[in-house]
This record gives sequence, structure tokens and C-alpha cells, in this order.
Amino acid sequence: MAVSLSRRGEVEPFHAMDVLAEANRLSAGGADVISMAVGQPSDPAPAAVRAAAAEALKRGRIGYTDTLGLPGLRAAIAAHYSEHYGIEVPAARIAVTTGSSAAFNLAFLAMFDAGDRVAIAAPGYPAYRNIMTALGIEVVEIELEGEAWLHAGHLEAAHRERPLAGVLFASPANPTGAVVPPDELKTLVETAQRLGIAVISDEIYHRLAYGAPDTTALAYSKDVTVINSFSKYYCMTGWRIGWMVLPETLVRPVERISQSLYISAPELSQVAAVEAFGATAELEAVKARYAANRELLARRLPELGFALAAPMDGAFYAFCDVTRLTNDSMGFARRMLAEAHVAATPGRDFDPQRGHRTMRFSYAGRTDEMAEAMNRIERWLG
Amino acid sequence: MAVSLSRRGEVEPFHAMDVLAEANRLSAGGADVISMAVGQPSDPAPAAVRAAAAEALKRGRIGYTDTLGLPGLRAAIAAHYSEHYGIEVPAARIAVTTGSSAAFNLAFLAMFDAGDRVAIAAPGYPAYRNIMTALGIEVVEIELEGEAWLHAGHLEAAHRERPLAGVLFASPANPTGAVVPPDELKTLVETAQRLGIAVISDEIYHRLAYGAPDTTALAYSKDVTVINSFSKYYCMTGWRIGWMVLPETLVRPVERISQSLYISAPELSQVAAVEAFGATAELEAVKARYAANRELLARRLPELGFALAAPMDGAFYAFCDVTRLTNDSMGFARRMLAEAHVAATPGRDFDPQRGHRTMRFSYAGRTDEMAEAMNRIERWLG
Repeated sequence: MAVSLSRRGEVEPFHAMDVLAEANRLSAGGADVISMAVGQPSDPAPAAVRAAAAEALKRGRIGYTDTLGLPGLRAAIAAHYSEHYGIEVPAARIAVTTGSSAAFNLAFLAMFDAGDRVAIAAPGYPAYRNIMTALGIEVVEIELEGEAWLHAGHLEAAHRERPLAGVLFASPANPTGAVVPPDELKTLVETAQRLGIAVISDEIYHRLAYGAPDTTALAYSKDVTVINSFSKYYCMTGWRIGWMVLPETLVRPVERISQSLYISAPELSQVAAVEAFGATAELEAVKARYAANRELLARRLPELGFALAAPMDGAFYAFCDVTRLTNDSMGFARRMLAEAHVAATPGRDFDPQRGHRTMRFSYAGRTDEMAEAMNRIERWLG
Repeated sequence: MAVSLSRRGEVEPFHAMDVLAEANRLSAGGADVISMAVGQPSDPAPAAVRAAAAEALKRGRIGYTDTLGLPGLRAAIAAHYSEHYGIEVPAARIAVTTGSSAAFNLAFLAMFDAGDRVAIAAPGYPAYRNIMTALGIEVVEIELEGEAWLHAGHLEAAHRERPLAGVLFASPANPTGAVVPPDELKTLVETAQRLGIAVISDEIYHRLAYGAPDTTALAYSKDVTVINSFSKYYCMTGWRIGWMVLPETLVRPVERISQSLYISAPELSQVAAVEAFGATAELEAVKARYAANRELLARRLPELGFALAAPMDGAFYAFCDVTRLTNDSMGFARRMLAEAHVAATPGRDFDPQRGHRTMRFSYAGRTDEMAEAMNRIERWLG
């Protein structure tokens, strides 16, 4: 017997994916499960995106592309920065990636060595913590303790304790939906730069804020690494296609690492994604439905005992304090799935320390499903 | 300024991908480039594979799947082991991955910690070395020095020097095309097991041997990690879809790491890949063309001064000693691309020490292209 198991293989599971797998098992067995566990739009990709993929399938081979992506897609992404934010980014600084998942891994590998300290907010997206842990990076979790976002003050305090190599934040944030106001974002980026702390800005929920317009960290510096994806606003989760905007000096290191770790992102998804920026009318209609879902949950969840623990400014998540219902959100989520056939994500994914008191509901599904889910939970709790 | 550059970002480029990018730039500029640089079939995926993808595009959302893959695809892969090798592997031990690229990264992360020593053959596939280096694993390159494969004797010697945690080998091999005979493979696996060295068997070029039938390392132990892919025999490079067969105790660690690093493999590619095992007639016709290309290159390359440095048993590579032509295969490959518009891969990818004396030609293209490439090189050298 010589099976080798690493210590780093002990990373925490991504519980939302375990819940998804269990929900899929139940569905395959005939159960009618409503999934609010995974941050995944229920709509298909825009028609033009699917048409481009179908066309490419007819044309012939789906092959490796340049590691940094098809030139046409890199140019389309660069044009998006000009059109959406009024910021000029050369296509040469865009790296197309296999979802934001690959972008995070590439950013961490290219920017940080084992032992480096990188700050993130708790609660936050669990893959940040899990990937960095697997790579030997020291994750400095900054507990927000009721504050809506990680701010310059947090950063200075953590850096004083022991120097940070980097900071990673998201706005709109997962799981809270919080949107950092532009002036706060500016101060955060400038503070990081002053302290010599490298910045990664996760902008995957851009175009999904319900109040303020989007602000990219690129507005305040060329030296930040921005990560984004076609998964959320553009409804392309399973296509596994995202991108990075890189400081010039990081382009070649990211390209080199990506050549060996990914070769290239799926070509079909790249060809298709070019069409995503032209599908705004279709996608805004989808977003209008999220807005309706958001209204519904903002009313129904507190009625059922799930107190809103965050402002629901953006993304498609309701982050709830469940202490009125349970002290063990993991067991609660499991029972809710098994008995009420509604899947939601236990807070432990987002905050190992305090997550037993919280849960996240994704409202990226259909409005009738959301309403039915709330009714099922009501019956189940009653 | 606070751009952070890691030391591990200094990994060697995958030169074949740099050559591909340069070939793509030349082609985009109107040059008629013949690419023999990248191990990529020129045929599209089988018709049934493309039809399944087109059908899925019509059905609707392309979403996240279970992290370990669609149950139907895992079952189809398990059935392939029964049909092709006569070996029973439960679907529960199959992990579907985003190409073999993801499979290598997952195997290394789940099996080895930073500082662990893992043996590979030189020459060998560069991503092995580059990914392990990025993860802090100590790569023990075993110079084959004219021997065709890494054998039990090599392993014992390297392990005596300082204990190895693992060994990774490929048969058929890249870049040499060498096929390890079954008795040698058996001894290698059993020796590793006896010494407590974990085994990763890269079987991505299975079904592409021109003499002997395939032997999987699974024939000799349940405790080996097997990596395979739909990229090569099945002509699905750009679909980014592969798989692992895992020892039981590794399934959950791989699932946990994959949840955060990849979420899931592209769904469209998973749906399509299910059809690949049924396309044998189509794929054997493609393989017959490789066999013809192989005959052609085995004759033409030596005529042109490229001495065959390996047996061309399998895969679709001719690995050549170029010392009659140059002492710098990297510069030679660059000039050959720029001046003769034929792309091949400098040996440095496969062996940093001795690669200046070798080059690899992929013969996965069309026969008329291969013939024309040889003619171009002949004119260029003359």
C-alpha cells in the first residue's frame, strides 16, 4: 500500500458544492428540489452566446488557444472596460481564464509565495481561503463583526501586527451582497499601495448592484489585479470562462504559469463569450427578475425567522443570521434539504469561526421557485 | 507601486505554447504556418460528440455539475475500463477534470506537500515539472540517458539517495513516444509500492500505440492514481476535459480541493464526452492517418538530418536529436518558424539540461501538411 495523502489535501470542503451534489442526488431520485445553495443563474447564456457556440461546433475543431486567450475575446473584454467604466485597458493586460477559479489560483501563484500573508474578509468566498491554504499562503481573515466591508482601517491594523503581502476583497461581496462605496474603495486601494500591499479586486458580481453604479479598482491604480467572470451577470457558470486584468509586470508570469497549469481556457466558451457583451437587453431582463426575487426574500426571510445580516446591495445573495432558528446552520441546512427540499448554504463556507450562526440563500433562480421555497420553509418550520 | 511578484512565478515557460502563440500571430498576419509544435489532433471531435454538445446548447442552461463530474460521464468512463482493459473500476473512483492539466494539479495537491520529492523522467512533459515547482514539490528528474523509459532500477537508486514520496511516468510517453512493456510496468508499480512511493500513471496517450495493446497501471494495483483525457485519441483538446482514476482514500481529498480550485469541469464538454467512447470507428480512422504520418516522418526526418532519438512506439511525436543541425534547438526552432513557417517544439521543454540538442515534431496533423512541412524544411536547410 502506497497511497500518499498530503496535509494540504485536508482543506475544508466547499460546503455549497457538497449541498449541490446532495441536491443533485435527491433530484436524480425524483425529488423536486429547489436549489438556493449555489450562486448560479437559472437562465441559460444569452441567445447570441449559444448561437456562436453552435456555429463554432459546425466549423470544426475546438482546439487549444493562446494561453492568454483568443485575441478577439481579449479585445472584447478591453472594449468592455472602455464602454462600461470609461477606463482604457490594453488587451495585452487581459488574461482569459478558465472561470474566476483559475484566475484566483493564477493570481495567488504569480503574486505570492508560501508563507506570505494575505488578508481577506470573513465572511467571504470560501475558495479564497481554501486555494491559498492549499498553496501554503497564510490567510489573514479579518472578521467584519457587523461592518459591511473590509476597509483601510482593518488593513492598517492587520499590517501593523505583521506585514501583509496582499489583500483580496470583493464588491459586490459574496456572501453579503455589500457594495463598497467609491470613496471607501479609493482609500482602501491607496492605503494598500502606500503600505506596499498588493491588491486583488474580485469584481465577479459587477453589473449586479441594485443601487449604485459599478466602480472598478482599476479606477484608482493600474497596479491592481482585477478578477471577473462570465459566470454571474452573463449566466455562463458551466462554461468556465473568466478573465483577469493584470498589472503589466504580472502578464508574463501569469502566462507562464497558465501554460503549464491550464494550457488554455475552453475554446468553445471563449468563442461564445465574445458575444456576451452585446446581450445587455437580455441580461438586464434577467437582472430585473433578481431584483424582484430580492424584494420577495427581503420580506419573506425575516418573516420566517431568518434575520438579514447584510444589506443585499448587490450580487444575488441574502445572508442571514439564523440564531433564532438554530445554533448549527450546517445541520439545519442538511435537514432543510432532506425534509423541505430547499437547498441553501450553511455559513461555515464563508466564516469557519462564526458561520454556525448564518446561512446564505442565492436568489438567482426563478421567482415562482423562490416563492415556493419560502412557502416550503414556512410549512417545514411550522 | 505595489505589484507583488512571487518567486514561484519564475517557472519555466511551456515553450510549445509560446511557439503556438507565435505561430498564431504569424497566421493571423496571413502567413501559411504548419504547426507541428503542439500535441493537438487536427481533426474535430467525433460527430456524435459535437451533436451532443449542440443538443445541450438547445436544451438550455450550461451549469455547474457535481465537482467530481456528471454521474453519466463517470459511469461511461468506468465502463471504458471494463471494455477496453477488462478491469472493473467503480464510477465512485472516477473524477472528471478540466483536462489532464487539472488532474495533475489535483493529484499533486492531494498527494504531496511542499518539500516532498517526486521522480519524473527527463525528457518528459514539462507541465509535470512546472506545476510541481509552483507547488513547492521537489522534482527529481531522472535522466534517461538513452534508455527508453524510467524503470524500477532508476526508482530504487533515486529513493536510496533520499526517500521519494512519489513517482510519475507516462506510457506512451511524451516527447519520446516510448511504450513501457507490461512486465516492466508491473515491476515498476510493484517496486514503488514496496518502497512506499505513491504512483501517478499518465495514460493520456493510451489507444495511440502502434504495436502493443494498452496496459494500465491499474492492472497491477488499486492504489495508483491514473490520469487520462479526451484530448488526444478522442480529438477534444480545446474542450478541456479529462479524468482521474483514484485510490479510494484519495477521492474525498481530490473532491474537496477541486470544489475550490475548479468548481467543476465545463458542463458542455462533459455532456459531449459521454459520446466519445462510442466513436471508435471514426477515431481509428484518425489513428490510421497518424500511422501514415509516422511512416512518413520516420523516413523523412533522418534524411533531413533529424536523427530519431526514440522509438515512435506511440503517441504522435517524433523526438529527434538535432546535433547534426544545431547546438541550440531553441534558436533553431524560432528561425524555422520565422523562415520556413514550420513550428516544432525545442527540446528544452522536455529536458532543461539536454534539451538544446533535441526537438519534438507532432504528427497529429494532416498527411499532406506533414509532407509539405518536410519539403519546406528541406528547402530551408538547403
